[in-house]
Amino acid sequence: MADRDWPGSAKSLKGVILDMCGVLYDSGEGDGVAIRGSVEAVKKLKASDLQLRFCTNETQASRETFVAKLGRLGFDISVSEVFSPAPTAVTVLKDRGLRPHLLVYDGLLSEFDSVDKTNPNCVVIGDAAEKFTYQNLNEAFRVLIGLENPVLFSLGQGRYYKETDGLKLDVGVYMKALEYACDLKAEVIGKPSPMFFQSVLTDMGLQPHEALMIGDDLVNDVGGAQHCGMKGVQVRTGKYRPSDERHPTVSADGTVDNLAQAVDMLLSQRGL
Amino acid sequence: MADRDWPGSAKSLKGVILDMCGVLYDSGEGDGVAIRGSVEAVKKLKASDLQLRFCTNETQASRETFVAKLGRLGFDISVSEVFSPAPTAVTVLKDRGLRPHLLVYDGLLSEFDSVDKTNPNCVVIGDAAEKFTYQNLNEAFRVLIGLENPVLFSLGQGRYYKETDGLKLDVGVYMKALEYACDLKAEVIGKPSPMFFQSVLTDMGLQPHEALMIGDDLVNDVGGAQHCGMKGVQVRTGKYRPSDERHPTVSADGTVDNLAQAVDMLLSQRGL
Repeated sequence: MADRDWPGSAKSLKGVILDMCGVLYDSGEGDGVAIRGSVEAVKKLKASDLQLRFCTNETQASRETFVAKLGRLGFDISVSEVFSPAPTAVTVLKDRGLRPHLLVYDGLLSEFDSVDKTNPNCVVIGDAAEKFTYQNLNEAFRVLIGLENPVLFSLGQGRYYKETDGLKLDVGVYMKALEYACDLKAEVIGKPSPMFFQSVLTDMGLQPHEALMIGDDLVNDVGGAQHCGMKGVQVRTGKYRPSDERHPTVSADGTVDNLAQAVDMLLSQRGL
Repeated sequence: MADRDWPGSAKSLKGVILDMCGVLYDSGEGDGVAIRGSVEAVKKLKASDLQLRFCTNETQASRETFVAKLGRLGFDISVSEVFSPAPTAVTVLKDRGLRPHLLVYDGLLSEFDSVDKTNPNCVVIGDAAEKFTYQNLNEAFRVLIGLENPVLFSLGQGRYYKETDGLKLDVGVYMKALEYACDLKAEVIGKPSPMFFQSVLTDMGLQPHEALMIGDDLVNDVGGAQHCGMKGVQVRTGKYRPSDERHPTVSADGTVDNLAQAVDMLLSQRGL
């Protein structure tokens, strides 16, 4: 692995944040499949003295549904440990008195149950996948173009992700589409937004330098965490591509084959 | 109207290029509707000593189908007078030995009959409208991401257009989506590409300063033509919006209520 200073700094760590899709499991038909060694790795982290949180841009399912799916794959994770964009968006919408037009996957709708959606004055898009029809995108566009001060929230800004049957376009692609159509800049809620990482650190009561992010997305997981002052390690699973290791602007503090290897190195360095 | 120098220079003009949708007609259910006065205005131009061509980013139908539709609306136009992106794309593809994966409206497919489409090494997108499903966009994405040197051609780069039942997203929006997904820059074929305007001037045998473009799209019609050295006049029909008249970077040589008014002013200035 690319041996930078993160294993050397493992002793000063107090918390670990794990990305989920591409680190714990690969999504796809049904529940997807656990990545080899990841179930055991999460168990080892939970048994250690490190705090553990999960941070995902998953916006196809509510946290309840998502955690239940991970349970079926063998992961022991509770809803309160999971940070995802939708509940953060709900807080932002309520704070600013905004009523969203939602273009999200059906499974995510329940996260917005408590939000007033009448007479929309903003648009929220998530990873709507097959719901990104021409008609639905046009409908979101018409809401925005009809507003005097159009506001677009994007739950993440990923380009694509990997399912068991191949690469799939992610929400960022449709964010760019609507940005161009309406000549505006979206507000991103989720990784790599610093506000989003900070909310996880606040929940753990940690300073950035006390936490390590492990993810498969070099820019959004690793770069985003580093931008907040955390260490960022990339796994060679999920959407990892070899070219990530010579990326022009983002350089991981470490690159490992998978989560199991990362956790073994981390705990061994701490003498556990 | 904003009275700049174009009526004053009308005497030195030798040719006029007309945008079609939003100038001649508004699209929508069935054939759409002719814009009041436009059928007569085209007749007057054809009876004058000016050369006349039509230049459209229309990519939902072949030129044959498109011209037949305009005939039903009362316009006397022949295929050889119409310049559209698809035939230009065919020339470019053949010149460069490229085999396209097509994401275009069914009605446009026949324009590409003579092109080898096996084992694609580039992607061509047009205004595919309802065919811009998640699945189809994903398929185009997978072709591009799988190529060592991905090439994306976009037939135009419009943001949206107006149909009788409202605004519709145009091909440029999906171009931006794929550009972001694949981290590349598309090659635009159609307005406002200088190469596209130049092909029309070449066909008329005119220098840029001898030709006037009349369109409803400030940036793509007017700005594009001006960028080539032509005069550009905007009509207040089609996708015209009042804010166009205080656009930060593009300023039309004239703004008129509709094509009929533009033609009457032009011919009267020439003493016809």
